[in-house]
Amino acid sequence: MDYREAGVDIAAADAAKERIKRLARGTFNAGVLSEIGSFGGMFRPDLSRYEEPVLVASTDGVGTKVQVAIAAGVHDTVGYDLVAHCVNDILVQGALPLFFLDYIALGTMEPARVEAIVAGVARGCAEFDCPLLGGETAEMPGTYAPGDYDLAGFIVGVVERSRAIPSGVREGDVLVGLPSAGLHTNGYSLARKVLFDVLGHRVDTPLPELGTTVGEALLAPHRSYLAALEPLLERRKIRALAHITGGGLGGNIPRVLPEGLGARVRRGSWPVPALFRMIQSGGGVSEEEMFRTFNMGVGMVAIVAPGDLHDVEHSLERRGETSFVMGAVVAGSGVAFE
Amino acid sequence: MDYREAGVDIAAADAAKERIKRLARGTFNAGVLSEIGSFGGMFRPDLSRYEEPVLVASTDGVGTKVQVAIAAGVHDTVGYDLVAHCVNDILVQGALPLFFLDYIALGTMEPARVEAIVAGVARGCAEFDCPLLGGETAEMPGTYAPGDYDLAGFIVGVVERSRAIPSGVREGDVLVGLPSAGLHTNGYSLARKVLFDVLGHRVDTPLPELGTTVGEALLAPHRSYLAALEPLLERRKIRALAHITGGGLGGNIPRVLPEGLGARVRRGSWPVPALFRMIQSGGGVSEEEMFRTFNMGVGMVAIVAPGDLHDVEHSLERRGETSFVMGAVVAGSGVAFE
Repeated sequence: MDYREAGVDIAAADAAKERIKRLARGTFNAGVLSEIGSFGGMFRPDLSRYEEPVLVASTDGVGTKVQVAIAAGVHDTVGYDLVAHCVNDILVQGALPLFFLDYIALGTMEPARVEAIVAGVARGCAEFDCPLLGGETAEMPGTYAPGDYDLAGFIVGVVERSRAIPSGVREGDVLVGLPSAGLHTNGYSLARKVLFDVLGHRVDTPLPELGTTVGEALLAPHRSYLAALEPLLERRKIRALAHITGGGLGGNIPRVLPEGLGARVRRGSWPVPALFRMIQSGGGVSEEEMFRTFNMGVGMVAIVAPGDLHDVEHSLERRGETSFVMGAVVAGSGVAFE
Repeated sequence: MDYREAGVDIAAADAAKERIKRLARGTFNAGVLSEIGSFGGMFRPDLSRYEEPVLVASTDGVGTKVQVAIAAGVHDTVGYDLVAHCVNDILVQGALPLFFLDYIALGTMEPARVEAIVAGVARGCAEFDCPLLGGETAEMPGTYAPGDYDLAGFIVGVVERSRAIPSGVREGDVLVGLPSAGLHTNGYSLARKVLFDVLGHRVDTPLPELGTTVGEALLAPHRSYLAALEPLLERRKIRALAHITGGGLGGNIPRVLPEGLGARVRRGSWPVPALFRMIQSGGGVSEEEMFRTFNMGVGMVAIVAPGDLHDVEHSLERRGETSFVMGAVVAGSGVAFE
């Protein structure tokens, strides 16, 4: 008996590694001191412009969005999602990316599939100047079914300590929402259940209301708000950011509010995309459950001083970014929808 | 329909989060500026003693060792394994840990199980002064069977650039092996196939030769070599380190050798533990395949100058660490076993 008979193909793993190396190299910047394949990736951060640099790190997956990718046979978008999601998570602390690592676990090592996933990761890494410094690709028969896989991403960024957010949030501050592109990476178990099991759709079922197939709608890449928000962070125009992930607006906005403050959110102050309404009516899902599970069309909420609102809106507009004034910070706790 | 009917239990996730927070807090040191639950974990590294600090990052999982943990109903050891493995991976570059993050994906969110896993992670983090700065716990029905899960760990450490290894390895340098504690985290698909499928053992089958059950033997925690090797790194007595993971001695030693150099390893220069021989004979696995799949009793190989050998052996002995002179660096490439 050998390792291959036990379901682990080292030769296939080596082939995948070569493809990953090439893709990763395309994301490298001057900070990267190592090649992919070292035990640890080495990165020399340029900290010269920081007085008190603070490292900000986060990890996340893309949830069961991978199941949609598998059904559709499209594997690069989830790779991109992973990076965009992580970039947003540290942006919420005001941090800019330094580097990224990925973990890919598969039931069977298929070099072409690994390459497609990593191509998406690398596209995100290049876009956000966040080198793919390392990663792990593990063949795990027994945990994952043949053809099945999971992904996790890890990001490290840096922020000047005195510029970290949330900072200075107070009553009366304005909530400015930025539009999501679909479900991003949350709520896929519910969305799949409704669209596939209840409504009987397949990934290639066309949705005339959206002008896409179900698969395309569900695989829309997670948006990163780095480019839109970096200039405003630089100019200290943002007091807090909430990345709208699992838990929705109600679960995420309170994470960046100080003790004693809550938020009021006006439903109807932004357009809820048709995909969400389709899931809601198809599954008979309550409005409350929809808002707890999905981003409902808002991917990021910026909290800004009322006096900065005009400036913020103008800056976003110049970058081609739509925004919605969707509520305010109020005394209390949690989020009250009205 | 709601998210729970789709297999995702947000209340159970919140309960798990509270347990994780408490465990993580026990690993914090002065560098940690954030609470678990922020979008990104914040860490202020003390870089005052570094002239040119280089960040070293790595990610890994524990492979299908999780399947043994599930069968045995013991979930803390794989958490510890994850940290020990990652600590070793950056030690190989000479780096000491700064912080750690974990990714746990499960078929069903069981707070007690998550707590057990994270308790093991936290035990490792505390032992290696490597705060558990953040993590993600994802319930993914559809990807993981109920009761099934996977883990990935992510570590960031730091090394003074001029002290990073491998450095200065030359022909004639000595390979010093440090003993592993069982399989560590590699080769579990083959080991499980032989022990469970071919030999018909169960996790609670006693192995008189080992004085443990099969489950205990397979779940022996991955050893970290940080404590044993840190003083020698500090004194610059080590030219390279190879962490013996997937690919075994032959796959990992060459990763830290410069172009034009290979290694000669004398089989028989260290005791191969009984567990490996049991797998080999039970599965009719060739010697070559055994060495390619398993660590065969050596978890870390240090490469030292001949003139430092006595000093290195003495230092290891004082720390209660066994070591084996197992070969030498030679002209050529790859590893020749003799």
